[in-house]
Amino acid sequence: MSNIRHALNVKREEDFAKWYQEVISAADLAEESGVRGCMVIKPWGYGIWERIQRLMDDRIKQAGVQNTYFPIFIPLANFEREAAHVEGFAKEMAVVTHHRLIADGKGGLIPDPEAKLEEPLVVRPTSETIIGDAMSRWVQSWRDLPLMLNQWANVVRWEMRTRMFLRTSEFLWQEGHTAHATREDALEETHRALEMYRACVEEDLALPVIAGEKPENERFPGADETWSIEAMMQDGKALQAGTSHYLGTNFAQAANIQYQDREGTQQHCHTTSWGTSTRLVGGLVMTHGDDDGLRVPPRVAPHQVIILPILRDKPEDDALLAYCEDLRAGLAKHQALGEPVRVLLDKMPGKASAKRWDWVRKGAPIILEVGPRDMENGKVAAIRRDTLWNTESGKLATEFVSRDVFVSGIGQLLEDIQDSLFREASDRRDANITRGVTEWKDVVQFYKSNGKYPGWVEVQWSKPTGSALEKVVEQLKAEKLTIRNVPRGSEPADGVCIFTGEKAVERILVARAY
Amino acid sequence: MSNIRHALNVKREEDFAKWYQEVISAADLAEESGVRGCMVIKPWGYGIWERIQRLMDDRIKQAGVQNTYFPIFIPLANFEREAAHVEGFAKEMAVVTHHRLIADGKGGLIPDPEAKLEEPLVVRPTSETIIGDAMSRWVQSWRDLPLMLNQWANVVRWEMRTRMFLRTSEFLWQEGHTAHATREDALEETHRALEMYRACVEEDLALPVIAGEKPENERFPGADETWSIEAMMQDGKALQAGTSHYLGTNFAQAANIQYQDREGTQQHCHTTSWGTSTRLVGGLVMTHGDDDGLRVPPRVAPHQVIILPILRDKPEDDALLAYCEDLRAGLAKHQALGEPVRVLLDKMPGKASAKRWDWVRKGAPIILEVGPRDMENGKVAAIRRDTLWNTESGKLATEFVSRDVFVSGIGQLLEDIQDSLFREASDRRDANITRGVTEWKDVVQFYKSNGKYPGWVEVQWSKPTGSALEKVVEQLKAEKLTIRNVPRGSEPADGVCIFTGEKAVERILVARAY
Ligand SMILES: [Zn+2]
Ligand SMILES: [Zn+2]
Repeated sequence: MSNIRHALNVKREEDFAKWYQEVISAADLAEESGVRGCMVIKPWGYGIWERIQRLMDDRIKQAGVQNTYFPIFIPLANFEREAAHVEGFAKEMAVVTHHRLIADGKGGLIPDPEAKLEEPLVVRPTSETIIGDAMSRWVQSWRDLPLMLNQWANVVRWEMRTRMFLRTSEFLWQEGHTAHATREDALEETHRALEMYRACVEEDLALPVIAGEKPENERFPGADETWSIEAMMQDGKALQAGTSHYLGTNFAQAANIQYQDREGTQQHCHTTSWGTSTRLVGGLVMTHGDDDGLRVPPRVAPHQVIILPILRDKPEDDALLAYCEDLRAGLAKHQALGEPVRVLLDKMPGKASAKRWDWVRKGAPIILEVGPRDMENGKVAAIRRDTLWNTESGKLATEFVSRDVFVSGIGQLLEDIQDSLFREASDRRDANITRGVTEWKDVVQFYKSNGKYPGWVEVQWSKPTGSALEKVVEQLKAEKLTIRNVPRGSEPADGVCIFTGEKAVERILVARAY
Repeated sequence: MSNIRHALNVKREEDFAKWYQEVISAADLAEESGVRGCMVIKPWGYGIWERIQRLMDDRIKQAGVQNTYFPIFIPLANFEREAAHVEGFAKEMAVVTHHRLIADGKGGLIPDPEAKLEEPLVVRPTSETIIGDAMSRWVQSWRDLPLMLNQWANVVRWEMRTRMFLRTSEFLWQEGHTAHATREDALEETHRALEMYRACVEEDLALPVIAGEKPENERFPGADETWSIEAMMQDGKALQAGTSHYLGTNFAQAANIQYQDREGTQQHCHTTSWGTSTRLVGGLVMTHGDDDGLRVPPRVAPHQVIILPILRDKPEDDALLAYCEDLRAGLAKHQALGEPVRVLLDKMPGKASAKRWDWVRKGAPIILEVGPRDMENGKVAAIRRDTLWNTESGKLATEFVSRDVFVSGIGQLLEDIQDSLFREASDRRDANITRGVTEWKDVVQFYKSNGKYPGWVEVQWSKPTGSALEKVVEQLKAEKLTIRNVPRGSEPADGVCIFTGEKAVERILVARAY
């Protein structure tokens, strides 16, 4: 709406990448650290991540998976196994070579040449191999299976071009690693983890996703099957929001994870791994953000309701603060979405209107302003972040409600906001998946002519492999496209392959991606 | 008791250090990782740490401190500030010098010489300086104060001699860093954090501690005051279980953390920092462990009640499992110590008696064995881990209780166990602090003749400084002794200094320490 004065300088339609950076900073989520490729996650951003962690962790524990902690350093030998099969192996990783710093005699510091490690250590890019080593020690018999482990940790992958939350040299994640007696058990776990991700990301983060299997070329190296959940960002690009891998016995063979079965025979385990990361916070921004900043779904909002007393630096402030504290306590007694309502009474100094806009940009689901007159009338001025503007008047859609009505309705209100953010995102997602395109030239045309943010296309293909698949990947790459996944439970194929002209065997989603 | 056959091979009285290692392994807490100085924290050990984290984090948030995340890598420049004041600066730290691994052409891998970092990075030994940098950006005016941040993170300090949980190259901790407008505010925060640690460690971990100020020689470098909580281990040694520092304006000056006060004048902030770590798990072992393994206080036990069905691989097992599941659900509906009871129905295959001893060694507070006959009679066989043996008969003090009575009493029972572990530890602590020693030769004699685990001695001193203090420290060191702290709220001094013969000004605790 042109008569609305939005809180951000950059609009989504103008420059999505620049808008993204502005939200990260305006919502106080994170900032550059001065250390190459690493970010500082600020309290509001970290609070969102903590909420995601807690909700995901509950689901992980619910499934009987156990949390553990493995060392940050991985010996070179663990990578040599992998490198043995790769010609011209080269990987971007942070390598520790010394264990002491000394003065260089010129006012600076240097790694002490006397303290060079005999064998360098790598800062973990993933814990796959070191956890595999432990599994080979911990699994002896069928009685030890399934062994289901998870770790919340920081990992490092040296990145040249970084983007906050989406691609940083250091990031935070969880990595699940499980070992099973049979293929069936391991596949069941692969799908359980995928479904857990779908449920957490859709229900908690309100990001609609499409769960499906990745094509061969997008598989995790060494995986027999890779599954993903894919979310659509507001610029129509796909964000892989979580992956779950069935590794067959490949990793068990490399790491020697064996068990004695009931008949006394040594068998290799079937293993899985699955992960999600702080990337999800980036997905949250690109899905729920608007031209006023972020909108945080209530389930993952560190604070769901902000109470802003309109203070005047006068003796009357005390009564107003007492009234607000009482309101806070009343709200905190209520439940919303299965947990006590999280309310913050913001008493920091500063003008109420400036603070209001801070919370709008941060995306707190509900902002309550309370002035002396509201207190007298037993009212609150409530702003719903998901429906911020009265589009007719171009003003904030503030609602003046009786305090009692507001307090008793808080559970329902937060549920409504959670639902409406999910619905808005899934409506947009559905409207931006184009089906029934049967000619490659129409795909090309679609991405050429369909505006700035064209969305995804569903096509049918013959699932080529080897060099035929490589050709397809090149063809897509020329248009900056990738195959996202083969959606779980999609309609059977009934046409011909858009790439090869052969009989199609399944439907795939094609998109530009982060 | 000599007629009891304990579960461990080594007894505490025989070899405390060896006993400690056996508990770590028998209770399945952690193991060596194969990576120098780093341990793998196994599910039961990590579960205890997660409980400590959650309870501590609740207290941290309660105080209005905000969690954040800062990069694992710290630029050399941050240490150069510190090194500038230190002659012959040399610090054990993990130094990252390269960002790529490549094949060496001989089947091995090496850091790519082409990928040498222009400036090496240090893996954080603490985040003091990088958080200080952020504070200098985030604090502008008195309105931004107090700024209270905390971080849960892994840190690395290269250690030559390591001991699980007590001293490892990598460990997990939380570090609080706060900035305030005035000395008074910062001191108040220093004491709030100390009191928070005391409460968490005493109430949640059931470790009695003595809170007090450290003498000058034990202060954190750069601190104006360092406070600690000290716990007594069963070998009479002290374990520093948490510290809280008042840093004056020293760090604010080094990191340029300034604010404009209400009058418009630029002022340096007064800062604090405070930390606790996975060391607490080591303290838990050395305080509550016994000759049968660990005893975990209910508040920090990942599972408080273990249900062990006595299965026979027969069709009747199904009914027994259903009965146990019902029992589990019944217990889980109850509250203990302010939270829902955490119950595990252990269905893993294996002999019930072997599994019982596993849980005894792990230290689950209550183990319930349920066989077909118990089911028929509506009973459970309950083992309380804190009072495991009937010392007269030398047998397990198993109690046969009606299921209903057990279920309805679970809250009280767990509370009793929590209290009794704390009482046992504080009685032992109190019995092993010797007061009234006024001559140095008696201190020396005390540690020579008072058995293997002599405990602590309280003495009076004149609080010497500078070289006089150094002399005292040397004198203590010769006996392997250290000053732990000046206990908060102890009696005023009324004698002469045991070291200098001058008039004493305060009482200090002297002990051997971890
Ligand atoms: Zn499948
Ligand atoms: Zn003080």
